[in-house]
Amino acid sequence: MTVTGKFITIEGGEGTGKSTLIEGLKKALSAHGLNVLTTREPGGTLLAEEVRELALKNRVDGQFSPLAMALLMHTARDDLLERQIRPALRAGYWVICDRFADSTRIYQGIDGVSETMLDALEKGVVADTIPDLTLILDGAPEDLLKRRSDRGVDDVFEARDGDFHKQVRQRFLTIAQDNPQRCAIVDALGGPKDVLDACLAMIKRRVGLP
Amino acid sequence: MTVTGKFITIEGGEGTGKSTLIEGLKKALSAHGLNVLTTREPGGTLLAEEVRELALKNRVDGQFSPLAMALLMHTARDDLLERQIRPALRAGYWVICDRFADSTRIYQGIDGVSETMLDALEKGVVADTIPDLTLILDGAPEDLLKRRSDRGVDDVFEARDGDFHKQVRQRFLTIAQDNPQRCAIVDALGGPKDVLDACLAMIKRRVGLP
Repeated sequence: MTVTGKFITIEGGEGTGKSTLIEGLKKALSAHGLNVLTTREPGGTLLAEEVRELALKNRVDGQFSPLAMALLMHTARDDLLERQIRPALRAGYWVICDRFADSTRIYQGIDGVSETMLDALEKGVVADTIPDLTLILDGAPEDLLKRRSDRGVDDVFEARDGDFHKQVRQRFLTIAQDNPQRCAIVDALGGPKDVLDACLAMIKRRVGLP
Repeated sequence: MTVTGKFITIEGGEGTGKSTLIEGLKKALSAHGLNVLTTREPGGTLLAEEVRELALKNRVDGQFSPLAMALLMHTARDDLLERQIRPALRAGYWVICDRFADSTRIYQGIDGVSETMLDALEKGVVADTIPDLTLILDGAPEDLLKRRSDRGVDDVFEARDGDFHKQVRQRFLTIAQDNPQRCAIVDALGGPKDVLDACLAMIKRRVGLP
Protein backbone atom coordinates (compact mmCIF):
# COMPACT_ATOMS: atom_id res chain seq x y z
CA MET A 1 0.00 0.00 0.00
CA THR A 2 1.25 3.46 -0.82
CA VAL A 3 2.42 5.71 1.94
CA THR A 4 0.90 9.14 1.49
CA GLY A 5 1.71 10.62 4.89
CA LYS A 6 4.96 12.06 6.14
CA PHE A 7 7.09 10.93 9.03
CA ILE A 8 8.92 13.51 11.12
CA THR A 9 10.97 12.65 14.19
CA ILE A 10 12.07 15.10 16.85
CA GLU A 11 15.36 14.38 18.54
CA GLY A 12 17.72 16.12 20.93
CA GLY A 13 19.07 15.87 24.46
CA GLU A 14 17.14 16.44 27.67
CA GLY A 15 15.69 19.91 28.10
CA THR A 16 15.90 20.95 24.46
CA GLY A 17 12.15 21.63 24.28
CA LYS A 18 10.93 18.69 22.21
CA SER A 19 7.46 18.47 23.83
CA THR A 20 6.74 22.19 23.42
CA LEU A 21 7.85 22.06 19.80
CA ILE A 22 5.66 19.04 19.06
CA GLU A 23 2.56 20.76 20.44
CA GLY A 24 3.31 23.78 18.27
CA LEU A 25 3.93 21.65 15.18
CA LYS A 26 0.69 19.77 15.68
CA LYS A 27 -1.29 23.02 15.73
CA ALA A 28 0.56 24.59 12.83
CA LEU A 29 0.39 21.54 10.56
CA SER A 30 -3.27 20.95 11.40
CA ALA A 31 -3.92 24.56 10.41
CA HIS A 32 -2.44 23.61 7.02
CA GLY A 33 -5.27 21.10 6.69
CA LEU A 34 -3.11 18.08 7.49
CA ASN A 35 -4.11 15.14 9.65
CA VAL A 36 -1.44 15.01 12.33
CA LEU A 37 -0.64 12.17 14.71
CA THR A 38 1.81 12.85 17.51
CA THR A 39 3.32 10.01 19.47
CA ARG A 40 6.28 9.30 21.69
CA GLU A 41 9.01 6.78 22.34
CA PRO A 42 9.36 4.50 24.12
CA GLY A 43 5.63 3.89 24.31
CA GLY A 44 2.68 4.99 22.22
CA THR A 45 0.86 1.63 22.15
CA LEU A 46 -0.46 -0.53 24.97
CA LEU A 47 2.30 -3.11 24.62
CA ALA A 48 5.00 -0.53 24.01
CA GLU A 49 3.93 1.27 27.19
CA GLU A 50 4.33 -2.02 29.08
CA VAL A 51 7.80 -2.40 27.61
CA ARG A 52 8.51 1.21 28.59
CA GLU A 53 7.44 0.43 32.15
CA LEU A 54 9.78 -2.56 32.27
CA ALA A 55 12.62 -0.42 30.93
CA LEU A 56 11.95 2.43 33.35
CA LYS A 57 11.87 0.01 36.25
CA ASN A 58 15.37 -0.79 35.10
CA ARG A 59 16.47 2.79 35.60
CA VAL A 60 15.65 2.47 39.27
CA ASP A 61 17.04 -1.02 39.83
CA GLY A 62 19.90 -0.68 37.34
CA GLN A 63 19.23 -4.21 36.24
CA PHE A 64 18.96 -4.75 32.50
CA SER A 65 22.22 -4.62 30.58
CA PRO A 66 22.66 -1.86 27.97
CA LEU A 67 22.11 -4.48 25.28
CA ALA A 68 18.85 -5.64 26.88
CA MET A 69 17.78 -1.98 27.05
CA ALA A 70 18.49 -1.56 23.32
CA LEU A 71 16.45 -4.71 22.60
CA LEU A 72 13.55 -3.43 24.72
CA MET A 73 13.63 -0.02 23.01
CA HIS A 74 13.47 -1.71 19.63
CA THR A 75 10.69 -4.05 20.80
CA ALA A 76 8.61 -1.01 21.77
CA ARG A 77 9.57 0.68 18.51
CA ASP A 78 8.52 -2.32 16.45
CA ASP A 79 5.12 -2.34 18.11
CA LEU A 80 4.67 1.41 17.66
CA LEU A 81 5.64 1.16 14.00
CA GLU A 82 3.41 -1.85 13.29
CA ARG A 83 0.37 -0.71 15.16
CA GLN A 84 0.45 3.05 14.88
CA ILE A 85 3.03 4.75 12.68
CA ARG A 86 2.80 2.63 9.51
CA PRO A 87 -1.01 2.45 9.46
CA ALA A 88 -1.16 6.23 10.03
CA LEU A 89 1.33 6.93 7.24
CA ARG A 90 -0.68 4.70 4.89
CA ALA A 91 -3.81 6.61 5.86
CA GLY A 92 -2.13 9.88 4.89
CA TYR A 93 -1.36 11.19 8.37
CA TRP A 94 1.63 13.29 9.17
CA VAL A 95 3.25 11.48 12.06
CA ILE A 96 5.41 13.41 14.51
CA CYS A 97 7.33 11.20 16.91
CA ASP A 98 9.05 12.38 20.08
CA ARG A 99 12.36 10.49 19.86
CA PHE A 100 13.01 7.56 17.55
CA ALA A 101 15.83 5.22 16.57
CA ASP A 102 18.52 7.93 16.81
CA SER A 103 17.90 8.11 20.55
CA THR A 104 18.55 4.40 21.01
CA ARG A 105 21.67 4.72 18.90
CA ILE A 106 22.92 7.51 21.10
CA TYR A 107 21.90 6.53 24.61
CA GLN A 108 22.53 2.80 24.35
CA GLY A 109 25.60 3.52 22.21
CA ILE A 110 27.06 5.64 25.00
CA ASP A 111 26.33 2.78 27.40
CA GLY A 112 28.44 0.49 25.22
CA VAL A 113 26.16 -1.34 22.77
CA SER A 114 28.12 -1.94 19.58
CA GLU A 115 27.39 -0.04 16.41
CA THR A 116 27.06 -3.36 14.56
CA MET A 117 24.23 -4.42 16.86
CA LEU A 118 22.54 -1.02 16.70
CA ASP A 119 22.78 -1.07 12.89
CA ALA A 120 21.24 -4.55 12.72
CA LEU A 121 18.39 -3.64 15.06
CA GLU A 122 17.64 -0.42 13.21
CA LYS A 123 17.74 -2.12 9.85
CA GLY A 124 15.41 -4.89 11.02
CA VAL A 125 12.94 -2.82 13.02
CA VAL A 126 12.80 0.54 11.23
CA ALA A 127 13.28 -1.15 7.83
CA ASP A 128 11.97 1.25 5.18
CA THR A 129 10.02 3.45 7.59
CA ILE A 130 12.87 5.94 7.63
CA PRO A 131 11.77 9.43 8.73
CA ASP A 132 11.27 11.97 5.96
CA LEU A 133 12.82 14.48 8.28
CA THR A 134 14.54 14.36 11.66
CA LEU A 135 14.67 17.68 13.48
CA ILE A 136 17.49 17.68 16.01
CA LEU A 137 17.08 20.30 18.71
CA ASP A 138 20.55 21.42 19.62
CA GLY A 139 22.08 23.56 22.33
CA ALA A 140 25.03 23.58 24.68
CA PRO A 141 24.04 21.56 27.77
CA GLU A 142 25.15 24.33 30.14
CA ASP A 143 22.97 26.91 28.36
CA LEU A 144 19.98 24.56 28.35
CA LEU A 145 20.51 23.87 32.02
CA LYS A 146 20.71 27.59 32.82
CA ARG A 147 17.53 28.25 30.89
CA ARG A 148 15.68 25.57 32.79
CA SER A 149 16.84 26.73 36.20
CA ASP A 150 15.97 30.36 35.26
CA ARG A 151 12.46 29.13 34.56
CA GLY A 152 12.35 27.14 37.79
CA VAL A 153 11.80 23.88 35.92
CA ASP A 154 12.74 20.60 37.59
CA ASP A 155 16.20 19.67 36.56
CA VAL A 156 16.02 16.72 34.22
CA PHE A 157 19.79 16.91 33.85
CA GLU A 158 20.55 15.79 37.34
CA ALA A 159 20.52 12.06 36.71
CA ARG A 160 23.75 12.22 34.70
CA ASP A 161 26.77 14.47 34.79
CA GLY A 162 27.67 17.23 32.36
CA ASP A 163 30.07 15.06 30.41
CA PHE A 164 27.23 12.72 29.54
CA HIS A 165 25.12 15.54 28.12
CA LYS A 166 28.07 16.77 26.07
CA GLN A 167 28.49 13.28 24.66
CA VAL A 168 24.80 13.11 23.78
CA ARG A 169 25.01 16.44 21.98
CA GLN A 170 28.16 15.44 20.12
CA ARG A 171 26.59 12.18 18.96
CA PHE A 172 23.46 13.94 17.73
CA LEU A 173 25.64 16.32 15.72
CA THR A 174 27.51 13.37 14.26
CA ILE A 175 24.27 11.66 13.23
CA ALA A 176 23.17 14.90 11.55
CA GLN A 177 26.48 15.08 9.72
CA ASP A 178 26.26 11.45 8.59
CA ASN A 179 22.63 11.76 7.43
CA PRO A 180 22.36 15.20 5.84
CA GLN A 181 19.39 14.21 3.66
CA ARG A 182 17.30 13.13 6.62
CA CYS A 183 18.48 15.37 9.47
CA ALA A 184 18.37 19.06 10.22
CA ILE A 185 19.82 20.78 13.26
CA VAL A 186 17.70 23.46 14.90
CA ASP A 187 18.96 25.90 17.51
CA ALA A 188 17.09 24.96 20.68
CA LEU A 189 18.07 28.10 22.58
CA GLY A 190 15.67 30.51 20.88
CA GLY A 191 12.20 31.18 22.27
CA PRO A 192 9.51 28.56 21.58
CA LYS A 193 8.14 30.59 18.67
CA ASP A 194 11.59 30.96 17.07
CA VAL A 195 12.17 27.23 17.34
CA LEU A 196 8.74 26.44 15.92
CA ASP A 197 9.19 28.87 13.02
CA ALA A 198 12.62 27.48 12.22
CA CYS A 199 11.20 23.95 12.20
CA LEU A 200 8.23 24.90 10.03
CA ALA A 201 10.55 26.59 7.55
CA MET A 202 12.68 23.44 7.50
CA ILE A 203 9.65 21.22 6.97
CA LYS A 204 8.43 23.45 4.15
CA ARG A 205 11.79 23.32 2.44
CA ARG A 206 12.61 19.66 2.97
CA VAL A 207 9.24 17.90 3.01
CA GLY A 208 6.92 20.46 1.44
CA LEU A 209 3.67 21.83 2.80
CA PRO A 210 0.27 21.94 1.09
CA MET B 1 37.71 -14.59 34.67
CA THR B 2 38.07 -18.17 33.61
CA VAL B 3 35.03 -20.27 32.93
CA THR B 4 35.41 -23.61 34.68
CA GLY B 5 31.82 -24.86 34.38
CA LYS B 6 30.08 -26.41 31.41
CA PHE B 7 27.04 -25.18 29.55
CA ILE B 8 24.57 -27.70 28.18
CA THR B 9 21.35 -26.73 26.44
CA ILE B 10 18.38 -29.02 25.86
CA GLU B 11 16.37 -28.41 22.74
CA GLY B 12 13.59 -30.10 20.81
CA GLY B 13 9.95 -29.64 19.86
CA GLU B 14 6.96 -29.81 22.18
CA GLY B 15 6.45 -33.11 23.96
CA THR B 16 9.94 -34.45 23.42
CA GLY B 17 10.51 -34.87 27.18
CA LYS B 18 12.92 -32.03 27.90
CA SER B 19 11.75 -31.42 31.50
CA THR B 20 11.96 -35.09 32.47
CA LEU B 21 15.42 -35.36 30.96
CA ILE B 22 16.64 -32.26 32.78
CA GLU B 23 15.51 -33.64 36.14
CA GLY B 24 17.36 -36.86 35.40
CA LEU B 25 20.50 -35.06 34.28
CA LYS B 26 20.53 -32.92 37.38
CA LYS B 27 20.47 -35.99 39.62
CA ALA B 28 23.00 -37.93 37.58
CA LEU B 29 25.50 -35.09 37.24
CA SER B 30 25.16 -34.17 40.90
CA ALA B 31 25.94 -37.80 41.73
CA HIS B 32 29.19 -37.26 39.80
CA GLY B 33 30.03 -34.59 42.36
CA LEU B 34 29.24 -31.68 40.06
CA ASN B 35 27.45 -28.50 41.05
CA VAL B 36 24.49 -28.31 38.70
CA LEU B 37 22.27 -25.34 37.94
CA THR B 38 19.13 -25.96 35.91
CA THR B 39 17.24 -23.08 34.40
CA ARG B 40 14.74 -22.42 31.65
CA GLU B 41 13.97 -20.03 28.83
CA PRO B 42 12.34 -17.65 28.49
CA GLY B 43 12.64 -16.75 32.14
CA GLY B 44 14.99 -17.79 34.90
CA THR B 45 15.54 -14.33 36.41
CA LEU B 46 13.09 -11.84 37.86
CA LEU B 47 13.28 -9.52 34.88
CA ALA B 48 13.35 -12.33 32.35
CA GLU B 49 10.20 -13.77 33.93
CA GLU B 50 8.55 -10.38 33.46
CA VAL B 51 9.61 -10.38 29.85
CA ARG B 52 8.27 -13.93 29.55
CA GLU B 53 4.94 -12.77 30.95
CA LEU B 54 4.78 -9.95 28.40
CA ALA B 55 5.59 -12.41 25.62
CA LEU B 56 3.05 -15.01 26.79
CA LYS B 57 0.40 -12.34 27.00
CA ASN B 58 1.15 -11.92 23.34
CA ARG B 59 0.25 -15.51 22.64
CA VAL B 60 -3.25 -14.81 23.86
CA ASP B 61 -3.70 -11.42 22.25
CA GLY B 62 -1.62 -12.16 19.16
CA GLN B 63 -0.18 -8.70 19.41
CA PHE B 64 3.59 -8.48 19.16
CA SER B 65 5.10 -9.02 15.73
CA PRO B 66 7.41 -12.03 15.23
CA LEU B 67 10.35 -9.61 15.23
CA ALA B 68 9.25 -8.08 18.55
CA MET B 69 8.93 -11.61 19.94
CA ALA B 70 12.50 -12.39 18.86
CA LEU B 71 13.70 -9.18 20.51
CA LEU B 72 11.86 -10.05 23.73
CA MET B 73 13.27 -13.59 23.75
CA HIS B 74 16.77 -12.18 23.38
CA THR B 75 16.13 -9.56 26.07
CA ALA B 76 15.19 -12.33 28.49
CA ARG B 77 18.18 -14.38 27.31
CA ASP B 78 20.56 -11.48 27.86
CA ASP B 79 19.33 -11.06 31.42
CA LEU B 80 19.54 -14.79 32.14
CA LEU B 81 23.08 -14.94 30.74
CA GLU B 82 24.28 -11.86 32.60
CA ARG B 83 22.71 -12.59 35.93
CA GLN B 84 22.67 -16.36 36.14
CA ILE B 85 24.41 -18.43 33.47
CA ARG B 86 27.73 -16.59 33.16
CA PRO B 87 28.25 -16.13 36.91
CA ALA B 88 27.42 -19.83 37.44
CA LEU B 89 29.84 -20.94 34.72
CA ARG B 90 32.57 -18.78 36.23
CA ALA B 91 31.85 -20.37 39.62
CA GLY B 92 32.35 -23.83 38.12
CA TYR B 93 28.71 -24.89 37.86
CA TRP B 94 27.39 -27.13 35.14
CA VAL B 95 24.47 -25.19 33.73
CA ILE B 96 21.63 -27.06 32.03
CA CYS B 97 19.20 -24.79 30.23
CA ASP B 98 15.76 -25.83 28.98
CA ARG B 99 15.74 -24.21 25.52
CA PHE B 100 18.17 -21.53 24.38
CA ALA B 101 18.98 -19.52 21.26
CA ASP B 102 18.21 -22.38 18.86
CA SER B 103 14.57 -22.21 19.92
CA THR B 104 14.31 -18.52 19.02
CA ARG B 105 16.02 -19.23 15.71
CA ILE B 106 13.47 -21.93 14.97
CA TYR B 107 10.19 -20.58 16.30
CA GLN B 108 10.67 -16.94 15.32
CA GLY B 109 12.35 -18.07 12.11
CA ILE B 110 9.24 -20.04 11.15
CA ASP B 111 7.18 -16.94 11.93
CA GLY B 112 9.26 -15.00 9.40
CA VAL B 113 12.09 -13.24 11.21
CA SER B 114 15.07 -13.05 8.85
CA GLU B 115 18.16 -15.17 9.38
CA THR B 116 20.28 -12.02 9.21
CA MET B 117 18.44 -10.56 12.18
CA LEU B 118 18.53 -13.83 14.13
CA ASP B 119 22.28 -14.12 13.45
CA ALA B 120 22.89 -10.56 14.66
CA LEU B 121 20.85 -11.05 17.83
CA GLU B 122 22.53 -14.33 18.64
CA LYS B 123 25.98 -12.95 18.01
CA GLY B 124 25.31 -9.93 20.20
CA VAL B 125 23.47 -11.62 23.06
CA VAL B 126 25.00 -15.09 23.28
CA ALA B 127 28.42 -13.75 22.28
CA ASP B 128 31.04 -16.26 23.47
CA THR B 129 28.72 -18.10 25.86
CA ILE B 130 28.13 -20.79 23.25
CA PRO B 131 26.90 -24.07 24.76
CA ASP B 132 29.52 -26.79 25.16
CA LEU B 133 26.83 -29.22 24.08
CA THR B 134 23.29 -28.92 22.76
CA LEU B 135 21.21 -32.07 23.11
CA ILE B 136 18.37 -32.04 20.60
CA LEU B 137 15.53 -34.40 21.53
CA ASP B 138 14.14 -35.68 18.29
CA GLY B 139 11.12 -37.70 17.27
CA ALA B 140 8.44 -37.74 14.60
CA PRO B 141 5.65 -35.39 15.76
CA GLU B 142 2.96 -38.03 15.13
CA ASP B 143 4.78 -40.56 17.34
CA LEU B 144 5.33 -38.01 20.09
CA LEU B 145 1.68 -37.05 19.91
CA LYS B 146 0.59 -40.70 20.09
CA ARG B 147 2.82 -41.31 23.09
CA ARG B 148 1.35 -38.37 24.91
CA SER B 149 -2.25 -39.31 24.22
CA ASP B 150 -1.49 -42.93 25.26
CA ARG B 151 -0.29 -41.53 28.56
CA GLY B 152 -3.33 -39.29 28.87
CA VAL B 153 -1.18 -36.14 28.96
CA ASP B 154 -2.70 -32.81 27.94
CA ASP B 155 -2.00 -32.21 24.34
CA VAL B 156 0.57 -29.47 24.02
CA PHE B 157 0.49 -29.94 20.27
CA GLU B 158 -2.98 -28.60 19.82
CA ALA B 159 -2.07 -24.93 19.49
CA ARG B 160 -0.44 -25.50 16.08
CA ASP B 161 -1.08 -27.95 13.26
CA GLY B 162 1.00 -30.96 12.33
CA ASP B 163 2.83 -29.14 9.57
CA PHE B 164 4.20 -26.69 12.08
CA HIS B 165 5.65 -29.46 14.25
CA LYS B 166 7.23 -31.07 11.19
CA GLN B 167 8.83 -27.76 10.33
CA VAL B 168 10.16 -27.40 13.88
CA ARG B 169 11.66 -30.87 13.74
CA GLN B 170 13.22 -30.26 10.34
CA ARG B 171 14.79 -27.01 11.49
CA PHE B 172 16.25 -28.63 14.59
CA LEU B 173 17.79 -31.34 12.41
CA THR B 174 19.24 -28.67 10.14
CA ILE B 175 20.77 -26.82 13.09
CA ALA B 176 22.32 -30.11 14.26
CA GLN B 177 23.72 -30.68 10.78
CA ASP B 178 25.15 -27.16 10.57
CA ASN B 179 26.70 -27.32 14.06
CA PRO B 180 28.06 -30.84 14.44
CA GLN B 181 30.64 -29.83 17.05
CA ARG B 182 28.05 -28.35 19.36
CA CYS B 183 24.92 -30.40 18.70
CA ALA B 184 23.89 -34.01 19.20
CA ILE B 185 20.58 -35.56 18.26
CA VAL B 186 19.01 -37.91 20.77
CA ASP B 187 16.08 -40.22 20.01
CA ALA B 188 13.24 -38.86 22.15
CA LEU B 189 11.00 -41.90 21.65
CA GLY B 190 12.78 -44.24 24.02
CA GLY B 191 11.78 -44.54 27.68
CA PRO B 192 12.98 -41.81 30.05
CA LYS B 193 15.87 -43.98 31.24
CA ASP B 194 17.01 -44.72 27.68
CA VAL B 195 16.96 -41.03 26.82
CA LEU B 196 18.83 -40.12 29.99
CA ASP B 197 21.46 -42.82 29.43
CA ALA B 198 21.95 -41.76 25.83
CA CYS B 199 22.42 -38.15 26.93
CA LEU B 200 24.83 -39.05 29.70
CA ALA B 201 26.88 -41.13 27.27
CA MET B 202 26.94 -38.18 24.88
CA ILE B 203 27.99 -35.80 27.64
CA LYS B 204 30.74 -38.17 28.71
CA ARG B 205 32.05 -38.43 25.17
CA ARG B 206 31.73 -34.82 24.12
CA VAL B 207 32.22 -32.81 27.31
CA GLY B 208 33.86 -35.32 29.63
CA LEU B 209 32.78 -36.28 33.14
CA PRO B 210 34.87 -36.31 36.32
